[in-house]
Amino acid sequence: MHFLTRFKRGELRLNRIEAFSDGVFAIVVTLLVLELKVPQLHDHASASELGEQLLELLPKFLSWLISFIIVCKFWLNHHHILGLAHHANYGMVWLNAIFLMFQSFVPFPTAMMGEYPSNPLAVSMFGVVMAFNTLLFIVLHAYILRNLIKPELADQQDPRIILKSFVGVVSYSIGVAAAWFSVHVAFLLYMLTPLFFIVPPPPRRVAGGGVSDAAETTRL
Amino acid sequence: MHFLTRFKRGELRLNRIEAFSDGVFAIVVTLLVLELKVPQLHDHASASELGEQLLELLPKFLSWLISFIIVCKFWLNHHHILGLAHHANYGMVWLNAIFLMFQSFVPFPTAMMGEYPSNPLAVSMFGVVMAFNTLLFIVLHAYILRNLIKPELADQQDPRIILKSFVGVVSYSIGVAAAWFSVHVAFLLYMLTPLFFIVPPPPRRVAGGGVSDAAETTRL
Amino acid sequence: MHFLTRFKRGELRLNRIEAFSDGVFAIVVTLLVLELKVPQLHDHASASELGEQLLELLPKFLSWLISFIIVCKFWLNHHHILGLAHHANYGMVWLNAIFLMFQSFVPFPTAMMGEYPSNPLAVSMFGVVMAFNTLLFIVLHAYILRNLIKPELADQQDPRIILKSFVGVVSYSIGVAAAWFSVHVAFLLYMLTPLFFIVPPPPRRVAGGGVSDAAETTRL
Amino acid sequence: MHFLTRFKRGELRLNRIEAFSDGVFAIVVTLLVLELKVPQLHDHASASELGEQLLELLPKFLSWLISFIIVCKFWLNHHHILGLAHHANYGMVWLNAIFLMFQSFVPFPTAMMGEYPSNPLAVSMFGVVMAFNTLLFIVLHAYILRNLIKPELADQQDPRIILKSFVGVVSYSIGVAAAWFSVHVAFLLYMLTPLFFIVPPPPRRVAGGGVSDAAETTRL
Repeated sequence: MHFLTRFKRGELRLNRIEAFSDGVFAIVVTLLVLELKVPQLHDHASASELGEQLLELLPKFLSWLISFIIVCKFWLNHHHILGLAHHANYGMVWLNAIFLMFQSFVPFPTAMMGEYPSNPLAVSMFGVVMAFNTLLFIVLHAYILRNLIKPELADQQDPRIILKSFVGVVSYSIGVAAAWFSVHVAFLLYMLTPLFFIVPPPPRRVAGGGVSDAAETTRL
Repeated sequence: MHFLTRFKRGELRLNRIEAFSDGVFAIVVTLLVLELKVPQLHDHASASELGEQLLELLPKFLSWLISFIIVCKFWLNHHHILGLAHHANYGMVWLNAIFLMFQSFVPFPTAMMGEYPSNPLAVSMFGVVMAFNTLLFIVLHAYILRNLIKPELADQQDPRIILKSFVGVVSYSIGVAAAWFSVHVAFLLYMLTPLFFIVPPPPRRVAGGGVSDAAETTRL
Repeated sequence: MHFLTRFKRGELRLNRIEAFSDGVFAIVVTLLVLELKVPQLHDHASASELGEQLLELLPKFLSWLISFIIVCKFWLNHHHILGLAHHANYGMVWLNAIFLMFQSFVPFPTAMMGEYPSNPLAVSMFGVVMAFNTLLFIVLHAYILRNLIKPELADQQDPRIILKSFVGVVSYSIGVAAAWFSVHVAFLLYMLTPLFFIVPPPPRRVAGGGVSDAAETTRL
Repeated sequence: MHFLTRFKRGELRLNRIEAFSDGVFAIVVTLLVLELKVPQLHDHASASELGEQLLELLPKFLSWLISFIIVCKFWLNHHHILGLAHHANYGMVWLNAIFLMFQSFVPFPTAMMGEYPSNPLAVSMFGVVMAFNTLLFIVLHAYILRNLIKPELADQQDPRIILKSFVGVVSYSIGVAAAWFSVHVAFLLYMLTPLFFIVPPPPRRVAGGGVSDAAETTRL
C-alpha cells in the first residue's frame, strides 16, 4: 500500500483523542509553573530580601501568564475544531500528535524568555514557537475541514476562516522581528495576539436565510 | 461584533471542560510533592543524620498537607458548581481557565512557605494566593448562577451563598495580616479555613415545602 | 448542622472522582522516573564510565520498580472498590482525597530509599508509608462497604475481607522492622507484599447456591 | 486458588484502563520536554552566546523529537489493540501496567542519549529500551488476540501480525549494535523504525469475500 494513502484509513472515535489531548494541554499549563523557582535567600527570615528577589522574578511571572493564556486559547479552539469532525482518521491523529508535540514544547521557550527577558534571541524564539504552533493548528484545522467535516456543519463554515487564522502567524512574526529592536514591544505583541480568536469564530450566516439561534448555539 | 458579547456565545459540553480541569487539579496536587527533596547526607548510612534532616523538613510537609487539602476542597466545590450549569459558554470557559491558572500557581507559594516558614512575607504570600483563588472561584460561581444555571436548580440556591463564600477570603486575609505578627497563627488559620465549605452547601429549603429527600440527594 | 453529618450528604457521580483519581495515579507512576537522573560523566564518550555509573543506580531502578508495581496494585484495587459503590457521598470523597494524598506522597520515600539503600531509616520509612497507604485504602474500602454498597453486590462480599486486607499492613510493618537488621530482607518483603491481592478478591460463594459464572464476571 | 489462574478472572470495563493509559502516555510525552534545560549564560543579553548554546542542545532536541514520535506511535497502536478487546481481565490489566511502566521509563534513556550523543552505551541503551517496549507491546497484543478478542473481529486479524511486529524489535536491535560503530547510523535507525506500523495494520481481506468498506472503517 502506498505510504501516504494509509493515513486516510481508520475511523477512530474522537473521545480518546480528546482525552489524550486534554491530558497534554493540562500538563503543559501546569508544568509552566515549575519554572518559577523559590529564590535562594541569605537571611531566611528577611521579608525585604525575599521581596526584592520576587520582584526580579517578574519577567518569569509575565512569561508564565502569557503562555498560560496562549495554551488555554489553543485548547478552546482545539475543542472547537475537533467538534467539527465526524470522526478521526490516522492522518488527523498524526497531525494532532505533531501539534501536541509543539504544544508540549512551550515550557522551554517560556522558561528561556522568563530567564533572559532582555535577550533578543530568547524573546524572539518565543514568538517563533508560537507562530509555528499556530501554523500547525491551521494545518490540522484545514485537514478537518477538507476531509472530516460533519455534513450538517459544512455549510456554516466561513470559507476564509483559514486565511483569517494567519493573522496570528503574522502577529507573532512581527513580534519575532520586533524583539531585535525592543523586547517590550515583542512582549506586548505576544500578550495581544491571543485576543484574536480568543473565542472560536461564529458560524457563518448562510445567504438567504442566516443562521438560526439554534445553529448559533449548536453543541460542539 | 463587540468584544465582550462574544463571550456569551457558545454552548459547550461540560465533559471536556471537566476533563481539562480534573487534569489540572490532579497534576497540581501531585506536583506538590516534588518540592519535598531527599536531603543530602554526609554519611549515607546514618539513620540519625537522616532523621534530623527529615525533622527540618517538617514545615515543608505541613505546607504540602495544607495545600493538598485546600486544592481538594476547590476540586470538590468546582465539581459542585459545574453541576449547577446547564452548559458552558465562552465566558465561563475563560473564567474557568483563569481560575485554573491560579490553581496551577499554588505549588509556588507552597514551596516558598515550606522553604522559609519563619519569613513573614513568604507565609503572607501563601494567604494572598489562596484568598485570590477563592475570589476567582466566587466569580466563576456567581457567573454560573447568573447566566448558566439549570432551571430546575435555580430555586434551590441560597441567595446569600456568594456572600457566605467571602468567609474564606476574609479568613485567608486575616492569615495574611497575622503572618507579620506570628507565622504560627497564620499556619493555623490556613489549616482551619478549608473547614468552611469543606463540603458544598446543601440545597436551600424552599419556603412552604422544604426540600425533599430526593432533592437533597439530587445527582450532581 | 453537625460537622460530621454533613459528610453523609451528597450523591455524586463516580466518573469525575474516577477521572481525578486516575489522573493522580497516572501522574504518580510517571513522576517516579524523574528520580532517575542521568549520571554526570567526566568523559562524555566513555561507555565504561557510564556503565559503572548506571550500575550504581541499581537501587534506584529497584525502588522505582517496586513503587510502580505497588501503585498499580492500588489503582486496580481502587478500581474494584469504586465499582462496589452505588454513588459517592462527601465522606467518601474526602476519604478518597486523603488516600490519594498519600499515594501522591509515594515518590518521596521511593527517592529516599533509592538514594540511601543502606540507610535503615530510609528503607524503613518506605514501609511505613506503604503500610499507612494500605491502612487508608482499608478505611475507604470499609466505608464503602458500610455505607455505599450496591444492594445487588452486598451479599457477595466476603465478610472477613477487611480483616484479610490487614495482611498487607502487617507485611509492610515486618519490613519496617526488618530494615534495621537487614535492608535486603526489607526490600524482599516490599517486593513480595503486593502479591497479596495482586488482583481483587473474587466474589464470595453464597451458601446454598454458589456464585454463578455470570456473577463471577460481573462488570465492575 | 492457583496463583496464575486468578489473572483470568475479572471483566473490567475498558474505559478506566484507557483513561489511566492515556494519562500515562500524555504525561510521558509532556515530561520529555523537561530535559531541555535553559542554558546558563554569562552575558544574559547576548544573542550570539545563547545561539551557540542552543546549537549544542541539538542532540537533545533530536532525542526529544524521536521519543515523542515513538511514544505517539505506541499510543495509536495501543488505542488500536484495546479496540480489539471485548473486555479486560486481570491478566491484561497487569500486562498493560508493565507495558506502561516501561513507557514511563522512556524519559530516562531519552535524556541520557540527549546528554551523551557520542557515547555508544548511551545511544545503545535507548534502542534496548525501545526494543523492550516493543516486545512488551507484542505480548499485550498477543494476549488480547488469544484471550479477549471480540468475536466479530477475530476473522479479520492477520494471523502473522505478531510475527510482523517483530520487525520493530529487530530494527531497534540493529540500532543497538550499530551504536558501537556509528552513533549516527543508530540515530537514523531510531528515526526510521517508527515508520513501520506508523498506523495500525488494516483488517485482513477474508478469502472468498474480502473485507467490506464498512469493515475497513469499523469504529475502533
